[in-house]
Amino acid sequence: MAIDFSKHIANVKDFPNKGIIFRDITPILQDGDLYRAATHDLAEYAKSRGAEVIVGPEARGFIVGCPVATELGLGFVPARKPHKLPREVESASYDLEYGSNVLEMHKDAIKPGQKVVICDDLMATAGTLHATKQLIEKLGGVVVGAAFYIELVDLKGREQFPDTDIYSLVKYHGA
Amino acid sequence: MAIDFSKHIANVKDFPNKGIIFRDITPILQDGDLYRAATHDLAEYAKSRGAEVIVGPEARGFIVGCPVATELGLGFVPARKPHKLPREVESASYDLEYGSNVLEMHKDAIKPGQKVVICDDLMATAGTLHATKQLIEKLGGVVVGAAFYIELVDLKGREQFPDTDIYSLVKYHGA
Repeated sequence: MAIDFSKHIANVKDFPNKGIIFRDITPILQDGDLYRAATHDLAEYAKSRGAEVIVGPEARGFIVGCPVATELGLGFVPARKPHKLPREVESASYDLEYGSNVLEMHKDAIKPGQKVVICDDLMATAGTLHATKQLIEKLGGVVVGAAFYIELVDLKGREQFPDTDIYSLVKYHGA
Repeated sequence: MAIDFSKHIANVKDFPNKGIIFRDITPILQDGDLYRAATHDLAEYAKSRGAEVIVGPEARGFIVGCPVATELGLGFVPARKPHKLPREVESASYDLEYGSNVLEMHKDAIKPGQKVVICDDLMATAGTLHATKQLIEKLGGVVVGAAFYIELVDLKGREQFPDTDIYSLVKYHGA
């Protein structure tokens, strides 16, 4: 029977700002069986999309994407905050639900034509997904899918990517 | 035959500051076979130490530790930078080779008596290890080992932890 991961997400009111309900995945991570099951679910998705490499944006995208990569025997490429990667980088900026930021990837991180699945914890307004996808495409990669633990459906992130296949373990409706 | 991971670490001069040689593990991560092999090596170590949970400090500790946790079917607990974790936290501060910082963990992240292996990319002056170990012990956990991709031997991090078992894939001598 499929696991209802929503039972293992902590809903924290007014974090980081008043009016936001923060969806905290740490209870899933702390439970070895749940973390492995969530990883396996995303890995099956990435495999079905023909992924050749996994990309995760800093920092929760590392927690979600890295074990997906090793389960499938694929490489993992971090999309990092500025001044973290030591070699030549490509960069893209994005607006967050609360704030804005810049992501960078090493210029040699993706091979032209390589099929990429992006992994992250949560899709809200999809600013991070926009920037991550833009980075991958600047390097010549092809985004064949994006996988999340959580999707905030009413923020309509999915509608901004009509040509990108998007998968999520748990969907929240409402605020 | 054992893999010589040092062949797959990029040595970047003067990053982030002049005089520092940055040991960049991204070439290992980008190669699915190498990333899986490095993960498996650390997982075998953690298993031999009787690990019941894996802790990794933000952010490269997530990349190293998360797939070790899922390979072993163990939970993963992130030690995060301030204002990232939404529930009640414990905190500890540390001095870096270049700068200083604070790490936090959720107060319910570790059960009293739980055996913990800490995973991170690199041990230099061991400030991050000090803070991470302190956090785990504040929560009642027992650090049964610490595993790194890279150890900068001449900075003598290991000597600061006479009672902690420390494992590393690659040891660098000299600056």
